[in-house]
Amino acid sequence: MYSFRNDYSEGAHPSILRALGESNLEQTCGYGLDPCCREAAGIIREKCGVKDADVHFVVGGTQANLLVIQAFLRPFEAVIAAETGHVNVHETGAIEATGHKVCTVPTPDGKLTPALIERVIAGHSSEHMVAPRLVYVSETTELGTFYTVRELREIRSCCDAHQLYLYVDGARLGSALTTPGSDLTFPALAAAADAFTIGGTKNGALFGEAIVLVSDAAKPNFRWYIKQRGAMLAKGRLLGIQFRELLRGDLYLELARHANEMAAIARERLTAKGYRFAVDSRSNQLFPIVQDDVIRALCRQYEFDVNEKTDPLHSVIRLVTSWATPEEAVRAFVRDLPAADSGC
Amino acid sequence: MYSFRNDYSEGAHPSILRALGESNLEQTCGYGLDPCCREAAGIIREKCGVKDADVHFVVGGTQANLLVIQAFLRPFEAVIAAETGHVNVHETGAIEATGHKVCTVPTPDGKLTPALIERVIAGHSSEHMVAPRLVYVSETTELGTFYTVRELREIRSCCDAHQLYLYVDGARLGSALTTPGSDLTFPALAAAADAFTIGGTKNGALFGEAIVLVSDAAKPNFRWYIKQRGAMLAKGRLLGIQFRELLRGDLYLELARHANEMAAIARERLTAKGYRFAVDSRSNQLFPIVQDDVIRALCRQYEFDVNEKTDPLHSVIRLVTSWATPEEAVRAFVRDLPAADSGC
Amino acid sequence: MYSFRNDYSEGAHPSILRALGESNLEQTCGYGLDPCCREAAGIIREKCGVKDADVHFVVGGTQANLLVIQAFLRPFEAVIAAETGHVNVHETGAIEATGHKVCTVPTPDGKLTPALIERVIAGHSSEHMVAPRLVYVSETTELGTFYTVRELREIRSCCDAHQLYLYVDGARLGSALTTPGSDLTFPALAAAADAFTIGGTKNGALFGEAIVLVSDAAKPNFRWYIKQRGAMLAKGRLLGIQFRELLRGDLYLELARHANEMAAIARERLTAKGYRFAVDSRSNQLFPIVQDDVIRALCRQYEFDVNEKTDPLHSVIRLVTSWATPEEAVRAFVRDLPAADSGC
Amino acid sequence: MYSFRNDYSEGAHPSILRALGESNLEQTCGYGLDPCCREAAGIIREKCGVKDADVHFVVGGTQANLLVIQAFLRPFEAVIAAETGHVNVHETGAIEATGHKVCTVPTPDGKLTPALIERVIAGHSSEHMVAPRLVYVSETTELGTFYTVRELREIRSCCDAHQLYLYVDGARLGSALTTPGSDLTFPALAAAADAFTIGGTKNGALFGEAIVLVSDAAKPNFRWYIKQRGAMLAKGRLLGIQFRELLRGDLYLELARHANEMAAIARERLTAKGYRFAVDSRSNQLFPIVQDDVIRALCRQYEFDVNEKTDPLHSVIRLVTSWATPEEAVRAFVRDLPAADSGC
Repeated sequence: MYSFRNDYSEGAHPSILRALGESNLEQTCGYGLDPCCREAAGIIREKCGVKDADVHFVVGGTQANLLVIQAFLRPFEAVIAAETGHVNVHETGAIEATGHKVCTVPTPDGKLTPALIERVIAGHSSEHMVAPRLVYVSETTELGTFYTVRELREIRSCCDAHQLYLYVDGARLGSALTTPGSDLTFPALAAAADAFTIGGTKNGALFGEAIVLVSDAAKPNFRWYIKQRGAMLAKGRLLGIQFRELLRGDLYLELARHANEMAAIARERLTAKGYRFAVDSRSNQLFPIVQDDVIRALCRQYEFDVNEKTDPLHSVIRLVTSWATPEEAVRAFVRDLPAADSGC
Repeated sequence: MYSFRNDYSEGAHPSILRALGESNLEQTCGYGLDPCCREAAGIIREKCGVKDADVHFVVGGTQANLLVIQAFLRPFEAVIAAETGHVNVHETGAIEATGHKVCTVPTPDGKLTPALIERVIAGHSSEHMVAPRLVYVSETTELGTFYTVRELREIRSCCDAHQLYLYVDGARLGSALTTPGSDLTFPALAAAADAFTIGGTKNGALFGEAIVLVSDAAKPNFRWYIKQRGAMLAKGRLLGIQFRELLRGDLYLELARHANEMAAIARERLTAKGYRFAVDSRSNQLFPIVQDDVIRALCRQYEFDVNEKTDPLHSVIRLVTSWATPEEAVRAFVRDLPAADSGC
Repeated sequence: MYSFRNDYSEGAHPSILRALGESNLEQTCGYGLDPCCREAAGIIREKCGVKDADVHFVVGGTQANLLVIQAFLRPFEAVIAAETGHVNVHETGAIEATGHKVCTVPTPDGKLTPALIERVIAGHSSEHMVAPRLVYVSETTELGTFYTVRELREIRSCCDAHQLYLYVDGARLGSALTTPGSDLTFPALAAAADAFTIGGTKNGALFGEAIVLVSDAAKPNFRWYIKQRGAMLAKGRLLGIQFRELLRGDLYLELARHANEMAAIARERLTAKGYRFAVDSRSNQLFPIVQDDVIRALCRQYEFDVNEKTDPLHSVIRLVTSWATPEEAVRAFVRDLPAADSGC
Repeated sequence: MYSFRNDYSEGAHPSILRALGESNLEQTCGYGLDPCCREAAGIIREKCGVKDADVHFVVGGTQANLLVIQAFLRPFEAVIAAETGHVNVHETGAIEATGHKVCTVPTPDGKLTPALIERVIAGHSSEHMVAPRLVYVSETTELGTFYTVRELREIRSCCDAHQLYLYVDGARLGSALTTPGSDLTFPALAAAADAFTIGGTKNGALFGEAIVLVSDAAKPNFRWYIKQRGAMLAKGRLLGIQFRELLRGDLYLELARHANEMAAIARERLTAKGYRFAVDSRSNQLFPIVQDDVIRALCRQYEFDVNEKTDPLHSVIRLVTSWATPEEAVRAFVRDLPAADSGC
């Protein structure tokens, strides 16, 4: 039984475990004020070319999202997000639980555009409505697509024109940085966003998201938010050690590239067998349309999500590869798959 | 300058002012525990045929909505509403400010249906998403349409099937009870809803919404919610006196009927002049499509909202009549209007 | 049965009712944007000598408190209040419901001092604790005492030294302005406070608190807060009309002075009969210590609160006089009271 | 430089790291639904003698506290805690951020009693005040003291009499279970509390608190709360593995006993040298009173917290020992300490 359900089914890359083990009995002060966190933050600032950015580390993505959003917004201000955005769909109302509305727009591919953002803005004109103030985008998106640097810059300009903050959820940032066709770099991201995260959980860490606050607006007292929301890890160095390990060399990109390559193999083979995809994604998430009876058969050997039906006999499935996916598992999966029928 | 902007531009029906004046120097206890509130609550229970309902009075509609919704829901539970629903659009995120997400669906006419409700339910399946738990409908809707008793019963059945509460925002309930074609009655409403409001502000009171809690779920400690949210009026009797005056006879229905009749006159004359309507509403809100140059001319003599454009030369306007609208004001308005052109 | 339970047992001063009646059928725009509110705001700005202050009107005191506090504070910031402060005791956690902690200190007389404030400040030093940021005082206090101008200035200096906002809850401001021994004036208050309220509910209005935002910090988008919290009155002019009537001449002070004078009569007569007081208050709230059997007898003719016991045979009662209290009611009450015994 | 600042300065007990390493590349499903979490939950249920308890694992103590409290309370309900309680002092208003007031009472030793609880209850009588509904106690307390089984049972009876929930914060539960003089056992705790936590962070885990929900009230949909508050760990098995390792044998108690023994040595030696203690604690937190000049000298070699001054020349310091404290570090510390002077 091999699982393609997500990119966090395994533990951590061995070098991370090793680093944790080596420092295990050293004493450090708690709560992210230790030397490891400082070092990791320095690496991130340098990699991103933002000397003045504040960097904080938290355990999970929902925490990162609600903390950043809350720090930027006043109580009547709202988020603009794609209808498929993680903060809208998959966080059990975490943003609303901090009091903020998430204003959504449907998108074909999970990506916001200036035109879509402006549609939301146009609908909010007085104190009888919330005031949209922060644009939330995921990179890569929940549908496996990515924003090019040019697209991010256009959104940035749109945000500037309407006095909006731009926050990029990088839970799968590694994948975005290494997807074929993507021209994204750390500095380009830092130049476009007011804040962004660098996701560790989905790219080889035990857990952890690095929050990078580029613009000053959310910086003051950010640690107060972290503590109040239960997101301050006592042994904060666990986060520093992991991000130091991932980012001081190229490990972060290598792991993500592997995941993308595994998906590319699957994609290429599936296409060869006649399968089409519900979304044209090139990163580590694929959404092929598969016959329901084939899905039933595959489920005996593989785990993956089954999403919406496309017709009475076919459904979209979601395949996710990871830093730990063995090439052989991918090849076995596509080998086990019969050719697509005409409804795929 | 006559205003068709809303149904709360004037003060109160004279008999309400008179009742407030007559009792002015009597001493009563505060916070809605006075004999006037008790009497008004009794009248409502009787009119609605719900002996065991709890009745509370608050000053405004947003208060009523956030109180009822909060009392029914646990923190991770959410509201289902039409995209045009008042709680979604025009309350500055009041529901989200209490921590609850509002899950919306587009509708052609501002009305939810079992199918639309089930579409939302189908999209929420695990602890990674909010749990939709309360259906919010407005009667009449924000687009001037209304639910028939049959439609309400079908929604009720849908709610029962999915363990949802049904809350009816009756800010314009008077209008719904007296719209031509509506078969709604107080008892029919009380039989369908878990809770509903009877709006005073938009039907001749200085202010006030009666909250009727039919099912037991939201009853316990409701006064604690009222107080905590700043919605407990010190001189609570002002609410009791007004609702007693509106509801002990037929004043409430008479005032609403007048508003509807004024709209019917406008509607009939506008139709005769060739105007079409963006929404087929029969209550006291009309949405005719008018030439932009005509709108500009009208604005010198009348106040009304101008909504979205339908083409480069035409827009939808919103006309609202009230208990206080003189027939002559309506007749003057439609007289001042030239015939529609072909784009209307 | 005459009630000394509070200062909001009756309706409104007749001249307020008259003003409401005279303008009843005029059309105005809603939500406090009407000419009456503008005029009342102008009167307040002039009376207080603060040209740049923002003035908003809301229906109730809990609303005013939670709105002002929320507008000044970020989510991790907290209020400093006396243990007896209204926001701490009598608002069902309304401040906490907006997410903010209320840090309290015991006081002998309901009044904060710089030393007490600094005791709270000293206890909060890092991101593991809330950050106290706003000082809440009531004028007059919940115990009927008042702050002199000098005391307010000392608190102001303390606030400046620690970067705290000073908010004065003036639910009983009229009483504070006219208590014998008080040197408070509107301009002196406005010079000391970052924000304060002028209470109408407890001084002759049907309802209403004027919120005066002196410093800029809470001004931006305050109407968004009002709407989000359900505190925006549709027929907002009702508030403007009432405050215009109370404040354009001396009515506000006259009504408060009457209440204070009625209390002074009671106080003088009670003292003559040998009663002592739990608090040395000179405003319209008195806290005499009375024999329990006398209390039981009085309860057959008068309403008032019975507070804590001082010994097995005596309790503190609370007597409140108002703008509407007839002198004869006071004289009858003290006449009906036997002499104090030695335990009072 | 050796730190006695807290009990979470090091990583994890080696056997925990080993267990994490051994299972590192196994695939499991996420979010705490994996076999390791199931196994750990089973061990806890058995150890506590509560077959029907629900067990959840979260990363940190603030998360555990806010989740449990929120799940038990409705919005107007409040917590009763000692003034020194962690939820009152050291969580940056996390409980208030979920909307709930924390009602506090001063205590001599950090411990609540039925009499103190009833003092709070007595002060809350109507809808104008919050409704206290949950008693929060820490075991051991923030002052290093502990509740005996008899004391817990008395609090339980008090809770039953007043319809209060009892929640025991076991961040240092290991210490409470092994402090000399304590008769606490897992089953005794489970029999007294409606919910409690078993702290891992301060007793040898990398991180982690086990939440044990004994009574049914907070059980439904608890995973929704976890997710909404950002407390659902993607690789949830990390928590299961750690708690399985700590609790399947006696490791949890052994580690805590070691910490307590190290403190006992320090305590005995300090007493022998003439030092007195601000609190009579026998667990792994000590609060000796030390001369300020001695403190200054010690700070060059040791880290520890310096709390309040007891007179101009002496202060209370806080020493915390842990599962990882070497006996030699303790002996060196007390050796380096000169004899107490008469002010200690």
